[in-house]
Amino acid sequence: MTTTPVRIGLLGCGNVGAAFVQLVERRHDEIANRHQIDLQITRVAVRNLSRERAVDLDEAVLTHDADAVVHDPDIDLVVEVIGGIEPARHLTLSALKAGKPVISANKELLANLGAEIYEAAGDAGVDILFEAAVAGGIPLIRPLRESLAGEDIRRVVGIVNGTTNYVLSRMAEEHVSFGEALAEAQELGYAERDPTADVEGFDASAKAAIIASIAFGVQVVAGDVYREGIAELTPGDLSFAARLGYVVKLLAIAERFDTPDGAEVAVRVHPAMVPEHHPLAAVRESFNAVFVEGAAVGDLMFYGRGAGGDPTASAVLGDVIDAALNLTNGRASRLSRLSEATIRPIDDLRSEYYINMDLADRPGALATVAGVFGDHGVSIRAMEQEGMGAEARLVFITHGAVESAVQSTLAAVRDLEVVDRVGSVLRVVGGDDS
Amino acid sequence: MTTTPVRIGLLGCGNVGAAFVQLVERRHDEIANRHQIDLQITRVAVRNLSRERAVDLDEAVLTHDADAVVHDPDIDLVVEVIGGIEPARHLTLSALKAGKPVISANKELLANLGAEIYEAAGDAGVDILFEAAVAGGIPLIRPLRESLAGEDIRRVVGIVNGTTNYVLSRMAEEHVSFGEALAEAQELGYAERDPTADVEGFDASAKAAIIASIAFGVQVVAGDVYREGIAELTPGDLSFAARLGYVVKLLAIAERFDTPDGAEVAVRVHPAMVPEHHPLAAVRESFNAVFVEGAAVGDLMFYGRGAGGDPTASAVLGDVIDAALNLTNGRASRLSRLSEATIRPIDDLRSEYYINMDLADRPGALATVAGVFGDHGVSIRAMEQEGMGAEARLVFITHGAVESAVQSTLAAVRDLEVVDRVGSVLRVVGGDDS
Ligand SMILES: NC(=O)c1ccc[n+]([C@@H]2O[C@H](COP(=O)([O-])OP(=O)(O)OC[C@H]3O[C@@H](n4cnc5c(N)ncnc54)[C@H](OP(=O)(O)O)[C@@H]3O)[C@@H](O)[C@H]2O)c1
Ligand SMILES: NC(=O)c1ccc[n+]([C@@H]2O[C@H](COP(=O)([O-])OP(=O)(O)OC[C@H]3O[C@@H](n4cnc5c(N)ncnc54)[C@H](OP(=O)(O)O)[C@@H]3O)[C@@H](O)[C@H]2O)c1
Repeated sequence: MTTTPVRIGLLGCGNVGAAFVQLVERRHDEIANRHQIDLQITRVAVRNLSRERAVDLDEAVLTHDADAVVHDPDIDLVVEVIGGIEPARHLTLSALKAGKPVISANKELLANLGAEIYEAAGDAGVDILFEAAVAGGIPLIRPLRESLAGEDIRRVVGIVNGTTNYVLSRMAEEHVSFGEALAEAQELGYAERDPTADVEGFDASAKAAIIASIAFGVQVVAGDVYREGIAELTPGDLSFAARLGYVVKLLAIAERFDTPDGAEVAVRVHPAMVPEHHPLAAVRESFNAVFVEGAAVGDLMFYGRGAGGDPTASAVLGDVIDAALNLTNGRASRLSRLSEATIRPIDDLRSEYYINMDLADRPGALATVAGVFGDHGVSIRAMEQEGMGAEARLVFITHGAVESAVQSTLAAVRDLEVVDRVGSVLRVVGGDDS
Repeated sequence: MTTTPVRIGLLGCGNVGAAFVQLVERRHDEIANRHQIDLQITRVAVRNLSRERAVDLDEAVLTHDADAVVHDPDIDLVVEVIGGIEPARHLTLSALKAGKPVISANKELLANLGAEIYEAAGDAGVDILFEAAVAGGIPLIRPLRESLAGEDIRRVVGIVNGTTNYVLSRMAEEHVSFGEALAEAQELGYAERDPTADVEGFDASAKAAIIASIAFGVQVVAGDVYREGIAELTPGDLSFAARLGYVVKLLAIAERFDTPDGAEVAVRVHPAMVPEHHPLAAVRESFNAVFVEGAAVGDLMFYGRGAGGDPTASAVLGDVIDAALNLTNGRASRLSRLSEATIRPIDDLRSEYYINMDLADRPGALATVAGVFGDHGVSIRAMEQEGMGAEARLVFITHGAVESAVQSTLAAVRDLEVVDRVGSVLRVVGGDDS
């Protein structure tokens, strides 16, 4: 059997990079056999040459000069698993300009500077593949780009951050506080020492921007994404949601609306109540899942491990094989052109809302609050009083209402003398009206 | 903008074919815009020219001569949605030999004569794509082939027949009999007038064979698949399973085992008990889902509509765009070579088992039965008596045991005087030991 050698330059050898080296070692012969390519990890760039690593690499292979790897004529293909904007950006651009396909796991780079990267790949006629950048090991980018190439995708709703899903699962199932669940996630290595990127929804926003670009073929950057985190949620919110038949998840939502003036796109990340029978409700622990709603195909969901060295390396390897086969055939995967997007602001979006508030124990208090909702055109679907007397807490679920109307309702309600405090406000997603 | 015309010859215009015609009409301009191809449905072959159809087709387009469509020099690409073995087989082979890519939704053909079809495509260097043949609209074949090209896939477990999943969901949730649930499915158009292919697992077996071929790169045909249907199941079995924390599903299971003599593959279709927290347990109504277990990627699941004109047409369209783009670039998607498979027979497989039986109300009866299990090396994990006196019913769950040992245990148990009847025997799939 003749195989074609494909010489890989690996940029970064941390969690994902080291797992990739090991995976290529384990799968090399089977891949040679099935696909007739001989994958060789020829050079590996890291920051710190003397660091202890999970993999044994020859001294001749390791370097701290990532630029030299990219420009090495003996390198056919580049895998970028350094992360962050620079030096990842210029390394990626240099490799593409040199006609070398790049496999990237870098959501930050793609979510902020995707258009520049895709353009460079298009100009050079080489592959930029990044299955690993969104939802780790779950095949999502390729299905969206290829399997659903003809589909009219209306909405994508994803649980794309494993850390927050773990935290919310523990809060809901074990009734622990946000802080306790987070500490547990940190102990298990699911959450970073500084959890801000996960907890405040920045990580999910970057992924949401990439998903929106691929699903709708438009330019969306992380800064276009409306964002709320989960730090304010209490176990009480979660158990109350459960009693109403909902599960609380941090969702990344990308929607497309047709208007007389062309398509608008809305992209947002926030905690939301998902009906318990919705497939996303069953996604527990640190798993990820992405739910896709298409006009013809109906509802689809892709589920699996959104992070971790091995799952992410598996996605990188799938892309590497694809690019390597393209390379041996002198071709590149298609990139569809991204058009400019009109971003619809969160203020204009419709949702059902769950709202709770502490109310003074006074006759007519409830009627006063309900009146304010009515004045703002927000119609109430259900209302329930929890507890009695000074502990009384009122919970509302609205019918579909526009965000701006709900926000002005809340502002007015907060000013009422009978309202002690407005607690959590959660949008309902995946219900009949949402 | 310049677009390349791609002239499609459509073979068959029933559920899927008519939905495909409508979908191409709706999506034509967007596809032209995004992918620079101009999809034209140039000719359509049907059996009965005068039949009323869901779509308006020009008389000049319709023909009953499918061979003429395939050989028409004005046709670039063939979509086969006739179904069955002949004439689909020779039409597909003729098209491929003429250098025309074929998009097929035909599970029966591919599950029985896949090797011949793939070889013809390989020889001609043109595409044979069949995303629609397994699990309808769910992207599965492309992710398995491409995204997971480097992955060591150990097992694929699928709910791939919507009719039986609907029937089992109704039986479990509404406590109706198999017959009532089936009648309801027929009324709703989920089940055929003759439900044998669905209910007895033939449809799922064909899909299981295709899944095994693609996931493991080996030749598996429908006849290699061990098969049991769901007609014997009672609502009692399902509620009992529920009380134990399980949901009963008809599963298609493809497994791969490494042995000193090379890989063995086992493929089977049978009802099974799935733990209630397993993602497959949440797949309700007529939805399909395919769960993939990989060594590096971990657990993945693909969920969606496994049938229906529109979802299936969406999968066909994705393949058509792929093939059309390949065609305009003078290339074909890769087909990995299928090696010969050693099929491991069901007798050699290990599972946990759920077994129920009616027992005589006599001292020592239980000990006698338990003794027979022990004699055959089948160890009991849990045992429970349901009901009292003459109504007594005994339920066993075993530890992991080999099928042949369980079958000889059951044969011996049936011969016992104290056993009135052995009821359902269900394997447990997706538990810690299975
Ligand atoms: N971890 C996951 O589960 C996961 C999942 C999906 C996507 N990703 C993405 O994958 C990428 C890598 O993540 P990771 O978790 O593997 O990160 P990591 O463990 O921090 O590894 C980063 C690697 O890059 C190297 N590096 C840093 N600066 C460099 C420079 N200037 N030149 C050469 N090498 C440099 C580091 O070298 P030293 O080892 O010498 O410090 C390290 O080996 C990120 O984009 C991340 O978002 C990660
Ligand atoms: N329906 C689904 O949900 C689904 C899902 C996945 C895969 N599939 C697969 O898709 C294929 C088509 O299914 P379907 O439900 O669309 O079947 P269908 O409704 O029975 O349509 C079959 C079509 O083939 C035509 N036909 C039959 N024999 C022909 C011949 N000798 N020459 C030319 N045309 C002929 C029929 O013509 P007339 O209209 O004149 O009778 C009809 O238009 C099958 O392989 C099926 O397994 C279906």
